[in-house]
Amino acid sequence: MDTNNKQPYTRTGASFTKEVKVRGRDLVNELIGTTRFTQMLYFLTCDRMPTQVQCDLLDACLVTLMEHGLTPSAVITRLMAMSVPEEPQVAISSGLLAIGSVYAGTTEQCAALLLDIEQRIENGEDLHAVLCEIVSAYRRDKRALPGFGHGTHKPDDPRALKLFELASQLGCADRYVRLVQGLGDEVDRQYGRHVTINATGAIAALLLESDVPVAAIRGFSVVSRAAGLVGHYLEELENPSGKAIWAAAKQTVPYRE
Amino acid sequence: MDTNNKQPYTRTGASFTKEVKVRGRDLVNELIGTTRFTQMLYFLTCDRMPTQVQCDLLDACLVTLMEHGLTPSAVITRLMAMSVPEEPQVAISSGLLAIGSVYAGTTEQCAALLLDIEQRIENGEDLHAVLCEIVSAYRRDKRALPGFGHGTHKPDDPRALKLFELASQLGCADRYVRLVQGLGDEVDRQYGRHVTINATGAIAALLLESDVPVAAIRGFSVVSRAAGLVGHYLEELENPSGKAIWAAAKQTVPYRE
Amino acid sequence: MDTNNKQPYTRTGASFTKEVKVRGRDLVNELIGTTRFTQMLYFLTCDRMPTQVQCDLLDACLVTLMEHGLTPSAVITRLMAMSVPEEPQVAISSGLLAIGSVYAGTTEQCAALLLDIEQRIENGEDLHAVLCEIVSAYRRDKRALPGFGHGTHKPDDPRALKLFELASQLGCADRYVRLVQGLGDEVDRQYGRHVTINATGAIAALLLESDVPVAAIRGFSVVSRAAGLVGHYLEELENPSGKAIWAAAKQTVPYRE
Amino acid sequence: MDTNNKQPYTRTGASFTKEVKVRGRDLVNELIGTTRFTQMLYFLTCDRMPTQVQCDLLDACLVTLMEHGLTPSAVITRLMAMSVPEEPQVAISSGLLAIGSVYAGTTEQCAALLLDIEQRIENGEDLHAVLCEIVSAYRRDKRALPGFGHGTHKPDDPRALKLFELASQLGCADRYVRLVQGLGDEVDRQYGRHVTINATGAIAALLLESDVPVAAIRGFSVVSRAAGLVGHYLEELENPSGKAIWAAAKQTVPYRE
Repeated sequence: MDTNNKQPYTRTGASFTKEVKVRGRDLVNELIGTTRFTQMLYFLTCDRMPTQVQCDLLDACLVTLMEHGLTPSAVITRLMAMSVPEEPQVAISSGLLAIGSVYAGTTEQCAALLLDIEQRIENGEDLHAVLCEIVSAYRRDKRALPGFGHGTHKPDDPRALKLFELASQLGCADRYVRLVQGLGDEVDRQYGRHVTINATGAIAALLLESDVPVAAIRGFSVVSRAAGLVGHYLEELENPSGKAIWAAAKQTVPYRE
Repeated sequence: MDTNNKQPYTRTGASFTKEVKVRGRDLVNELIGTTRFTQMLYFLTCDRMPTQVQCDLLDACLVTLMEHGLTPSAVITRLMAMSVPEEPQVAISSGLLAIGSVYAGTTEQCAALLLDIEQRIENGEDLHAVLCEIVSAYRRDKRALPGFGHGTHKPDDPRALKLFELASQLGCADRYVRLVQGLGDEVDRQYGRHVTINATGAIAALLLESDVPVAAIRGFSVVSRAAGLVGHYLEELENPSGKAIWAAAKQTVPYRE
Repeated sequence: MDTNNKQPYTRTGASFTKEVKVRGRDLVNELIGTTRFTQMLYFLTCDRMPTQVQCDLLDACLVTLMEHGLTPSAVITRLMAMSVPEEPQVAISSGLLAIGSVYAGTTEQCAALLLDIEQRIENGEDLHAVLCEIVSAYRRDKRALPGFGHGTHKPDDPRALKLFELASQLGCADRYVRLVQGLGDEVDRQYGRHVTINATGAIAALLLESDVPVAAIRGFSVVSRAAGLVGHYLEELENPSGKAIWAAAKQTVPYRE
Repeated sequence: MDTNNKQPYTRTGASFTKEVKVRGRDLVNELIGTTRFTQMLYFLTCDRMPTQVQCDLLDACLVTLMEHGLTPSAVITRLMAMSVPEEPQVAISSGLLAIGSVYAGTTEQCAALLLDIEQRIENGEDLHAVLCEIVSAYRRDKRALPGFGHGTHKPDDPRALKLFELASQLGCADRYVRLVQGLGDEVDRQYGRHVTINATGAIAALLLESDVPVAAIRGFSVVSRAAGLVGHYLEELENPSGKAIWAAAKQTVPYRE
């Protein structure tokens, strides 16, 4: 175990008798009433206020991720609302625990890949050669390229198309949006058919365009999906589905010795 | 066990090959790019889009709740980030599980109390008599009146004052804000000293002014605090405090046979 | 917020350079190799080692609770294992969060009811009058009597019968087992038909017979079910059911505008 | 997304009107009253009943892991018990979420390493050469060898010594115990000083001796620690430490702009 001799501290926030400080600002006099949720989220994670364009991009990504119907997270939230009905935070938090490698990780992986490509170009490599090599490697290893393909949305994920269009309108589609689209062109060429860039790929590009660190990306998915799960929790209270889901699960997975 | 014969369904959302539907709207063509996070949160929980004023009130409440320094939730998130560093959603969700009766429940309880007072007035009771009776009952039972008092913020919680001022400016301080303030006057009279309305009391009044159901209130605290905990998770990665907190806990709670 | 001036301490455990202490004992020289899991669980929760009979009763209760097929907990664990496959503790802990009021709370409620009846008898009330009054009150309020009735096991829950038989063989069916059976007789009389004492009712009685505090009962359910969920997690890895459960949930809860 | 055409099923358990089946056995007539907790845990995870020796080894490992004082898990459980006092399962499950890569992962990693060494020997490599190469590689990469070293227990972890002694007495120290000890000798030789085999290293060896799959190991840690956390939850109720821990955390991590 290493010893961490540095005195830890927090810049995040603290409350005092007559004020609450948040990253150097006075919560009451500088933030409440003038700052929107999305701006505060960006401020708390990036340690600076977003520009209007960055805020618009982030809002678009958060709105895109918020709700997808009965995802595994939503199913878990509903079963938990049935089992522990007094505690909304337990229902919502349980669903959020499922925002893991399988259903959210591709956003971060795609973002990391785009940053890696950018770095290699800056180091003097040829863009086309880099894209070609990456796609070949994924194909050879039969690994899914993060941000590509979708089980339901074919030939294109309409959310990705919309997000790219929005980034163009906002004048910030020149770096990472262009990169992921270039990657998409190479994918189509090598696979000999069109593979959609999915919503996670588009969100990865837009969040990088708005200068969000990769380490914050899964947290943003969690925040967005938390809002969606409040909706599922409330709907479960007034129009319960938990028992029907449970019965369906038992029927789908019979006991066999 | 009761049998629920009604076929369950969801209005919340679903994805199809070429579109994603969210409560009757087309996510791609109607919501992404035009709707902000806070509007979507309201839409998903109240089943209608907020007015601008409702959205402003909700943003003010969410911004107020988002960050309070090293709350129990934040401490849990930091210890979890130290223990399971690969999974941001685990760190954040664990912290959210602590948004329970003790630290968040007073908002809902205060809202329920205000609705109860309103109902009694509508049924013809005298406002002053009702307030007097309620405060007497809490005093007699030595129970804390939800939404009142604060350990740090004295004589007044500056967040509550700001939220009331904002509600006034937005022209919606006539119902629940006035009620909670009336309750506060009666508290001061009976206790013979000024007891602050705290942030949870003010938020209860503002959320009722914006026509949010009581059952959604704790979920809103969860969403807001999720954003705050992303900030704590990221700060913990770059400036770790977990080991120091752990050591302090061990020192604070010694073993004794 | 009250101030807690007492210096907190823990009797539970601590580690030192050459020894680990657990509630006054030396873990290495007194416990490892001589103490079984069930004895340690009892020791840590009751602050004394169980007698052999207490340990046998506890083992029987833990074995009874461990596994019931695809409970809501098991379904959640399987969906989580599909979503976050790298983290068994996340899959298992999520399932455990569902051990709440609805599916586990009846054990504690039944135990509290039995203690209440015992107290009233000790205070000089007549046993039959007390049982009669309690059953009448539950009937009148149309509330389920905790520990009674079962959706699947009719006319009797075979687990309860077995647990009562075991308690008799161990010579400890004279207090709480007799009380819950007396309660059952009164239920049958007032309802005019046989209502089974279910496993949670029998476990409540046996745990009281083994002198376990009511506050520990839900924790024991959690420990027992944790073992069961390890099994579900491992089965999910080798024989996945998560996608099929998810698909069944979507089909069972269709989107409707 | 792959399509899983196989009909899923479960061997784990199911309940019917007159019986409960668990992995082919009749719960009521074959398991309750004759089977101990530890046997059932082994049965549910390994799909066979343990021998007496396997059960003794497993009990020793579970007892060793159960309690270590104020671990991060225990601190989280106590903060959660303070925040959501009505829900023991939330306090316990939150603590269990922290049984991740940092504090429990070394057991599995050590077990995987021992299996890898065994495989290489079976493939004809020389034992000493393999151990030498592995220790060199970890030294070169400055990585901690899983199962070795301890911050508190020096020069030896007394738990590991006890577990090895127990395995010897039970006649099952010839394979993995000998391997991990051989690895320890090579560590001491290359580092030029004694580095202890810690409890996770010893537990890895004993669980392999008892024929437990690597995928079950973290689950066993979770089960064992669940029992320990029930104790912390109960102690927190009667002798609260949460507020003192919280205050210590705030003092330890001051706000700095």
